[in-house]
Amino acid sequence: MTVTDQDRMVCGVHLSEDERSVIILDQTQLPNRQVWLTLNTSEELCDAIRRLSVRGAPAIGICAGYGIYVLAQQIRKDDTAEFRALLEKQAEELVSTRPTAVNLSWAAKRMLNVINSNIDLPVSQIRTLLREECIRIHDEDIQMCYAISEYGLSLVKPGDGILTHCNAGPLATSRYGTALGPILLGKEQGIDFRVFSDETRPLLQGARLTSYELQKAGVDVTLICDNMASLVMKNGWVQACFVGCDRIAANGDFANKIGTSGVAILARHYGIPFYTLGPTSTIDMNCPTGDEIRIEQRDPDEIRTMWYKEPMALPEVKCYNPAFDVTDHSLLTAIVTDRGIVYPPFDVNLKKLFASEEG
Amino acid sequence: MTVTDQDRMVCGVHLSEDERSVIILDQTQLPNRQVWLTLNTSEELCDAIRRLSVRGAPAIGICAGYGIYVLAQQIRKDDTAEFRALLEKQAEELVSTRPTAVNLSWAAKRMLNVINSNIDLPVSQIRTLLREECIRIHDEDIQMCYAISEYGLSLVKPGDGILTHCNAGPLATSRYGTALGPILLGKEQGIDFRVFSDETRPLLQGARLTSYELQKAGVDVTLICDNMASLVMKNGWVQACFVGCDRIAANGDFANKIGTSGVAILARHYGIPFYTLGPTSTIDMNCPTGDEIRIEQRDPDEIRTMWYKEPMALPEVKCYNPAFDVTDHSLLTAIVTDRGIVYPPFDVNLKKLFASEEG
Repeated sequence: MTVTDQDRMVCGVHLSEDERSVIILDQTQLPNRQVWLTLNTSEELCDAIRRLSVRGAPAIGICAGYGIYVLAQQIRKDDTAEFRALLEKQAEELVSTRPTAVNLSWAAKRMLNVINSNIDLPVSQIRTLLREECIRIHDEDIQMCYAISEYGLSLVKPGDGILTHCNAGPLATSRYGTALGPILLGKEQGIDFRVFSDETRPLLQGARLTSYELQKAGVDVTLICDNMASLVMKNGWVQACFVGCDRIAANGDFANKIGTSGVAILARHYGIPFYTLGPTSTIDMNCPTGDEIRIEQRDPDEIRTMWYKEPMALPEVKCYNPAFDVTDHSLLTAIVTDRGIVYPPFDVNLKKLFASEEG
Repeated sequence: MTVTDQDRMVCGVHLSEDERSVIILDQTQLPNRQVWLTLNTSEELCDAIRRLSVRGAPAIGICAGYGIYVLAQQIRKDDTAEFRALLEKQAEELVSTRPTAVNLSWAAKRMLNVINSNIDLPVSQIRTLLREECIRIHDEDIQMCYAISEYGLSLVKPGDGILTHCNAGPLATSRYGTALGPILLGKEQGIDFRVFSDETRPLLQGARLTSYELQKAGVDVTLICDNMASLVMKNGWVQACFVGCDRIAANGDFANKIGTSGVAILARHYGIPFYTLGPTSTIDMNCPTGDEIRIEQRDPDEIRTMWYKEPMALPEVKCYNPAFDVTDHSLLTAIVTDRGIVYPPFDVNLKKLFASEEG
């Protein structure tokens, strides 16, 4: 797939036309209002990521790439070492906003590597290279999503019921998305599915984003509460589960939105194939198993009060509010990547995937 | 257990001290406001039941019993037939408020039977018998809950983590409740548990009622979203699941709040015992399996808009909103009733439970 300017501009994260700002569709305002934010400063970028105005690991990565380029243009230093030191500091701040998502630090590292590999060049030339690199990060993601969508589409047949959790659609990534990619690419090709979208408490990405994206695309989508997935599966309405991933360990364990492991256990119980879809960049071969993935804990008020007209629990009630969970590789039918579908044994086949790249 | 005046007075539904009114804790105002309503007229009683100020099948039954006694005191007739005619009419109105709640018509029938069986007695004596009957309905429920609580308490040990779904506590029943009974009885006896309360979408009974009741009782309770149960179990924090039941079929399949079957599948996956607790009256030996239990479908706006400051999904998004699901008996460790703990094979042992009663 050849990426055009148009492909980039329809994405929820892109560079402004004057290339001085990062433009994002504020995901916290959906589905009621389409508000585009213009991010110029390190503070605005960090804040947007922290407040989940931009969310979804690849989208955060794209945002970080563009963000670092935007910040690089503001650093008025001609000395490359000074320039690097200042940009590194801002990149660190950006990376610290969301510890679990690997794409954030990965994108920041790619941008900083541009400087490190060209430390002898003048700052003006480095800025040009940074521009190319952040656009490359975005384009690669669009291409990856397309490849993932094609591979995923080969796993289902027209009319199938597909259950998804959280949001791994275009808003979270780019263009087609990952977990929603096969559905949206299928729609473009005239192939219809029946999709069940978990609302995904506490932040309701399934209700606010997934059902929004699919409805807007004309897909047959039914919104359910997370605890209804078991009954929907028992009813025989689900032929496959497609979920995204925030980090995949070398043995196939993977972190994704809280509740994913529960969906995987239900799918196993009812004999339904369960797939995670994500770009190769989500695979962290330095992370041996899911036990090494740190789970972010979030504010209890996301459960108690955040969306409600009035509090839904006493203020003194303790809440446990993990943002992610780890799904054991034993529950996973296959990992759908931009470079193909990886089946068990994952420890062996993920190694092969990377070996074939290097060979 | 001998029921005292004190046991009755701490319940969410009880008779006022002068016995002229029914006092209820308005459940629609929880957890934000503790509002006690004084119900004197037929209109006030009907309204309280209709608006769900009192909910939970046993609690509604107790309220109906007291309500009919309160109304009986207001009827200024010395002729028993005239007295009966007027009271019957008011009881009918009460029963019509929630036609599907079995305990409501059951309690009304018990009260009217007192008149029918004593039609030759003067009205003043019938009033005394009605007073005894409504107190008996309440006391029987307290005793059932106490027996369930004692049996349930024998299944766990101090410090255990207990996960519960929806609300089967004192507010929905009386005194100790059913699924929460072992926890609250344990607390009185100085035995502490660590409880995880599923918030229970879409109506949030776990957040609004269960975590409220347990917090007020000084129990260590942690509120979680439904989709966090898998991680909480994986963390090793749960040693038993206690849930209520709306109907138990002859083979042990049982209907309970939507999501219960998912909790049962997770518990099985993680090797955690899973119990349902309820009075023997919940067992329907005329219902052979869970397939015969009809599942109530509710308003989509309970998912999309009901609690929220603004809509959480596009108005045109379809929702599937079943109120209950059926948990397969194969996932159930035991059924805890007021007459003892029933283990598999449930088809055989439930029959034995009823045979021993008749024998």
